Amino acid sequence: MLYLTKDDIQKCFSMRDAIEADKKALELYSKGQTSIPLRTNIDIAEKNGQNLYMPGFVGGEKAAAGIKIVSVYPNNITKGLPSVPATMIVLNPETGVVSAMLDGTYLTQLRTGAISGAATELMSNKDSTVMALIGTGGQGAAQLEAVLTVRPIKEVRIFDIDFERASKFAEEMKDHFPQIKMIPCKSAVETVTGADVITTVTTSKRPTFDANWVKKGAHINAVGAYTPEMCELPSDILPKAKTIIFDTLDGVWSESGDFLQPLEKGLIDKGIVDGELGQLVSGEIDGRTSKDEISIFETVGTAALDVYVAEQIVEKAKSSGIGKEI
Amino acid sequence: MLYLTKDDIQKCFSMRDAIEADKKALELYSKGQTSIPLRTNIDIAEKNGQNLYMPGFVGGEKAAAGIKIVSVYPNNITKGLPSVPATMIVLNPETGVVSAMLDGTYLTQLRTGAISGAATELMSNKDSTVMALIGTGGQGAAQLEAVLTVRPIKEVRIFDIDFERASKFAEEMKDHFPQIKMIPCKSAVETVTGADVITTVTTSKRPTFDANWVKKGAHINAVGAYTPEMCELPSDILPKAKTIIFDTLDGVWSESGDFLQPLEKGLIDKGIVDGELGQLVSGEIDGRTSKDEISIFETVGTAALDVYVAEQIVEKAKSSGIGKEI
Repeated sequence: MLYLTKDDIQKCFSMRDAIEADKKALELYSKGQTSIPLRTNIDIAEKNGQNLYMPGFVGGEKAAAGIKIVSVYPNNITKGLPSVPATMIVLNPETGVVSAMLDGTYLTQLRTGAISGAATELMSNKDSTVMALIGTGGQGAAQLEAVLTVRPIKEVRIFDIDFERASKFAEEMKDHFPQIKMIPCKSAVETVTGADVITTVTTSKRPTFDANWVKKGAHINAVGAYTPEMCELPSDILPKAKTIIFDTLDGVWSESGDFLQPLEKGLIDKGIVDGELGQLVSGEIDGRTSKDEISIFETVGTAALDVYVAEQIVEKAKSSGIGKEI
Repeated sequence: MLYLTKDDIQKCFSMRDAIEADKKALELYSKGQTSIPLRTNIDIAEKNGQNLYMPGFVGGEKAAAGIKIVSVYPNNITKGLPSVPATMIVLNPETGVVSAMLDGTYLTQLRTGAISGAATELMSNKDSTVMALIGTGGQGAAQLEAVLTVRPIKEVRIFDIDFERASKFAEEMKDHFPQIKMIPCKSAVETVTGADVITTVTTSKRPTFDANWVKKGAHINAVGAYTPEMCELPSDILPKAKTIIFDTLDGVWSESGDFLQPLEKGLIDKGIVDGELGQLVSGEIDGRTSKDEISIFETVGTAALDVYVAEQIVEKAKSSGIGKEI
């Protein structure tokens, strides 16, 4: 069995690799070549915790199988441990034998960033130079890196409800991407106004920006709203968008408040959505048709991404001799 | 994270340890202190395989959490690999962090043997000296060891539909238990007649012995029939038994042909069962009341056993400095 830490993964698997893997995984998902059962949640009231088990199988030429185990223990913080520890277990799809164990936290950041990267590459204007990033939590860095990977971004405006956190994050990002202007912002309006690509990745329950601030031609990645209670998008941006794409139709329509809340209020109907990112990848549907239109990508994630990206990481690590064989 | 092979487990965790752990796990199960969701099965037709994911949580003072991953790939045999590879992932129940990975095949053998050991200890006559073992597949050795652990067995009669396999198995067992007479038998009748403890652990779809061969006072462990199609017990033994105990009522009544088939034929009703092994452990119900009565224990297993036994193994391995820390 191969054991891979975050460092191991970073050594052999780039954001570009992750974007390509995400595209392939979603293409296979949209073609019905994946088998993703319902997640199993075990609530552990006596420990104020939760164990989430997310298995999956991706078929096709490059099959992949495994399970991501994510725990949610808010009290871990007081123990100096992550409050959402995660581990990915990879199975050899040909034999069912456990073949690898990976840092699931970094895998999640990488594949979640990469999905916005894939959407931005397929949906935004090619000459996008200004990015707005709303939210600088655990997923922020990978979201930023993903957009930088696919577009010639010169300036990133960074907003967080905690300005100090935004400033600290901007400093860190400057170290990683010294050629890019990183600007911590005190308001969402200065962050979003004029941005070509807007990525919102918060746990907010109300819109993180105003539809009027969004410029013509902008592309929006909505990443944070993975429960019906959560909502980052202002509902009046939805009818303004020419193209709206989900990572998975089933996933977003069951989980994301960004679309469930306006649907419930009768502000939109399900026909507002053009399709899945995997259909854009395969060319089954079209993305952007003109420079001035607004496009929106909504993601809640799927185990197909974890399973498929993890298998690609394992194959690359093996061929590069990276990781610990046990 | 602690990595434990079969050898590691054998070094620090005895069959007696496993029997005690199984008893405790089933007691907690019967008291409603476990959370065992439905198993997730992913069928992988294109690989002629199946991935089974069995998570669970056991509460109480000594909590335990984790998941057993079992794959079924019949073609593995041609690759020199086990056809049913299994791995146990243990989570720290206090933090949700993955704390250990164990050989799941050996864990299954150990906890499945131990459950018959626990039942035999709680249900059979104390002076049982003759054991009949029907079936010498992967679970045979642990089933035998478990009964030897709890009763003063002097003679084990061993039957398999393949006599050569029974003979080979008897030779192997002689090496492990030189003080015990190991007798490979050519027929089930000579195996069962006069035996004090009968353990049947086959994948048979028809009874593996005849009710008339069972002596007064015998105890029967029925281990093999874990699907509705499977059936090892002759249905006419059921009304002859004074005490019938299941490992879990839910499990046996949903899975085991030993009881589902006679139930469907109207030969028994559900009242024939006295309760769960965990209730015997806690003293909530009584077991054997006289020397001459026949008792039956039926088991299909539960993830509560895997999760709880694995946690006990991990704790013992840690305190003994056994295994590989990664």
